[in-house]
Amino acid sequence: MLALIAGEGKLPAVLVDNLSDLPYIAAMEGYPPDFLTPDRVFRIEHLGTLLEEFKALGVTDVCFAGSIRRPAIDPAQIDAATMPLVPRMMAALSKGDDGALREVLTVFSEAGFNIRAANEFAAALLPVAGVFTSRRTDTQHAADAVRAAEVVAHLGPLDIGQSCVVHRGRVLAIEGQFGTDWMLRSLRDRPDEGGGIFYKAPKPGQDRRIDLPVVGVDTIAAAHKARLEGVVVEEDGVMVLDLAAVERAADEMGLFFWVRRP
Amino acid sequence: MLALIAGEGKLPAVLVDNLSDLPYIAAMEGYPPDFLTPDRVFRIEHLGTLLEEFKALGVTDVCFAGSIRRPAIDPAQIDAATMPLVPRMMAALSKGDDGALREVLTVFSEAGFNIRAANEFAAALLPVAGVFTSRRTDTQHAADAVRAAEVVAHLGPLDIGQSCVVHRGRVLAIEGQFGTDWMLRSLRDRPDEGGGIFYKAPKPGQDRRIDLPVVGVDTIAAAHKARLEGVVVEEDGVMVLDLAAVERAADEMGLFFWVRRP
Repeated sequence: MLALIAGEGKLPAVLVDNLSDLPYIAAMEGYPPDFLTPDRVFRIEHLGTLLEEFKALGVTDVCFAGSIRRPAIDPAQIDAATMPLVPRMMAALSKGDDGALREVLTVFSEAGFNIRAANEFAAALLPVAGVFTSRRTDTQHAADAVRAAEVVAHLGPLDIGQSCVVHRGRVLAIEGQFGTDWMLRSLRDRPDEGGGIFYKAPKPGQDRRIDLPVVGVDTIAAAHKARLEGVVVEEDGVMVLDLAAVERAADEMGLFFWVRRP
Repeated sequence: MLALIAGEGKLPAVLVDNLSDLPYIAAMEGYPPDFLTPDRVFRIEHLGTLLEEFKALGVTDVCFAGSIRRPAIDPAQIDAATMPLVPRMMAALSKGDDGALREVLTVFSEAGFNIRAANEFAAALLPVAGVFTSRRTDTQHAADAVRAAEVVAHLGPLDIGQSCVVHRGRVLAIEGQFGTDWMLRSLRDRPDEGGGIFYKAPKPGQDRRIDLPVVGVDTIAAAHKARLEGVVVEEDGVMVLDLAAVERAADEMGLFFWVRRP
């Protein structure tokens, strides 16, 4: 049986829609998924107990989907089954986001579960390459996408963000700790005439068992408010939540949406 | 004789205060220096004429100080003496900021002028290493400075920014095309409790004949408004406009100011 560790956002629900058998759904307290009622809400301090429950339920495979920000740990709440995991949890939390996630996956692997990537279950989340909008890309957008891809690839080893904004060769913003939405929101005050692209890609060498980055209708709206001309995502590297809706939204707002072959 | 190409900000005036002989001061139209009256205001379309005037005046050395954003060129305004320079000016403007500046320096070099670095004339602009405030740095700030230095060094080849903000190992923001002030202003809306450092350094391999980055009282105020704990600059790599005033401002706002040996 598959257990889904569902974080925030729409991805967990989209995933469940794509599964023939309903998975067991666990969500971390404080990070509720959209449009899904979890079978179980757990606290990080009870992770060891959750692992035991999974075994008792016959869970064999675990899939992480949706975003969970790094939770605080309340030492007073740690239960007996979780106590042996504490040193590793502490080590994980002291690392960058990638490092922390890798450590969490290792904990589940060593407990005997197969880790499955979200995109294994929903191939439609990874559309083929192409421009899916009325607005087409021009040579400047193509050049900006090359520059953006170079920036994101170069930032990989620093474990910072997976997206950036480029306009005529200049990097206007790079995603940091506060994420994509915050970065795009900060560009609403941009001191120029507007223009440019939002680009998103996985980090180089990203562990594909961890969520690939996700875009959706919200991304298009945020890019529009940042006065950008379009959104570019790397083919096979970024999950698109409801491509048809993304395309519609982009058309309404006059943006292009480009799934780009790297 | 020294000619100063004075851009915006206080640096040109500080420099003139530090010179025993008054230089010839030229400023580009639209980028007036603070507290200085230029001898000559020129347009980029008349650069060839300016070079000829410099020679006629007996100028031997040229120093660039202060910021000049990439100007637009109006083809109709280009004069005869500047016409031969147009292909190179166009090539320069198509490059990143670093590339454009290097090309401009080459034009002046080939016209026979020695290019002098602003900090040659004002050693006081490069303070010795130390923490110059009542507030001291702690081990977290030191770790964040290491991380920030790594980020800025790593960004060097991408010709993006020279500064970033780090809080407990996480990169909150990286300077992009809109510069330091804009980046810090965008952090006023930060969605967390505040904290962290602003870090500034020259790019790796920066041509030191081009302005080193500059901080001053304004930087401290902007860092304060971004709810940061302190400002860190690389020793010998960042010019500090009026160290005493910077120290006073930081003390009043409860920030540290750290000139850090890399």
